[in-house]
Amino acid sequence: MIRETKATADSFTQVKRLPDKVRTDATTMFSILDAGIVAHVGVVDGNQPIVVPVGYARDGNRLLIHGSSASRLFKLLDSGAPASVTVTLLDGLVLARSLFESSMNYRCVMAFGITHRLEGDDEIEGLRIITEHLMPGRWNHARQPTSQELKATMTLELKLDRWSVKVSEGPPDDLDQDLTSTEGSSLWAGVVPITEQLGIPIPDQYVPSGTPVPDYLKTWGRN
Amino acid sequence: MIRETKATADSFTQVKRLPDKVRTDATTMFSILDAGIVAHVGVVDGNQPIVVPVGYARDGNRLLIHGSSASRLFKLLDSGAPASVTVTLLDGLVLARSLFESSMNYRCVMAFGITHRLEGDDEIEGLRIITEHLMPGRWNHARQPTSQELKATMTLELKLDRWSVKVSEGPPDDLDQDLTSTEGSSLWAGVVPITEQLGIPIPDQYVPSGTPVPDYLKTWGRN
Repeated sequence: MIRETKATADSFTQVKRLPDKVRTDATTMFSILDAGIVAHVGVVDGNQPIVVPVGYARDGNRLLIHGSSASRLFKLLDSGAPASVTVTLLDGLVLARSLFESSMNYRCVMAFGITHRLEGDDEIEGLRIITEHLMPGRWNHARQPTSQELKATMTLELKLDRWSVKVSEGPPDDLDQDLTSTEGSSLWAGVVPITEQLGIPIPDQYVPSGTPVPDYLKTWGRN
Repeated sequence: MIRETKATADSFTQVKRLPDKVRTDATTMFSILDAGIVAHVGVVDGNQPIVVPVGYARDGNRLLIHGSSASRLFKLLDSGAPASVTVTLLDGLVLARSLFESSMNYRCVMAFGITHRLEGDDEIEGLRIITEHLMPGRWNHARQPTSQELKATMTLELKLDRWSVKVSEGPPDDLDQDLTSTEGSSLWAGVVPITEQLGIPIPDQYVPSGTPVPDYLKTWGRN
């Protein structure tokens, strides 16, 4: 069951600037997380922040990440260090008539919290969900993890109960005076869309020639 | 003049895991930064890390970012808070025969340090460099910032003298036993490339019909 959350309003999740870009519905938050591949996870070591890219998946009202049990990031998270998880989808370059209003279109989720480690069957289910998000259909078509491999892997869950969402979309937001000035009215202005695209799958050298690309792989697409 | 740096080896920049993925030459670091658009900047507020996406540019041995003077991130950075700046380029999904070896191809720079605020002509030059990285040619074809707009903008420099680079590329790295097992040898394995692509520019409603897309815009491309 998906428990819907709303954006909370503590000092970290309340967006004060550019309020027209704020979204507070979980549906938008979920759709952004479901479209992404990599999250940037921030944690503090001493007084030094570190930001590390990790593959992830959303499952209901939680976000799942996995990595090496030996990594600094995962050891810190497992010790209870507060986490910041940011997923950014870049949608376009926004060319306004003024440099000041020039910007980007994007969808961004920032989530905060303390992660919880999954173990046993919960971990395997978590890994299955992550795999099926990143590589739909692959879980049942690859060699399953051994107990040794599971030991080398850490799978963490972050409950999505402290988060904010910002969405910047549409055309430039120029000042009236830039629309009507001689300089401004002669300028090209608009959006250059950006998309992330999957290319043609490249088999490695050990795949027997003539082996077809699996059907499940053909359905993948992003954005 | 570009002062070349090498990856240093303090506790934050020395990569201990997966050493075959480490690159220590500044040329590789520069090329990754030059191919990216958005950096994820981490900073600590109290004991809470926050990770925010920002547009950036590299200029010689420094990284430049700009944002609102009123934003939490920029105010914290300006107060001398240690920063972590991560740029990740996602290049592919790596489908190994084992789930454990399945991964992603990527190029990632992590830089650390304390930012320095640019002011006066240095700030304008910094903004020009950022604009020319994100929107090459646009600086001279848009309305320049007013003093009020400059006041609302903060431009920060991070010297690139503490950094690490990891590059994951090429085919899956399966265990020998997975290459020869009945299950493994019948599996499709390889890489699904991921690219970030710029689409056809979309003029806004105020651009007079028939206005051509500017020549400088036609040369843009990523990856």
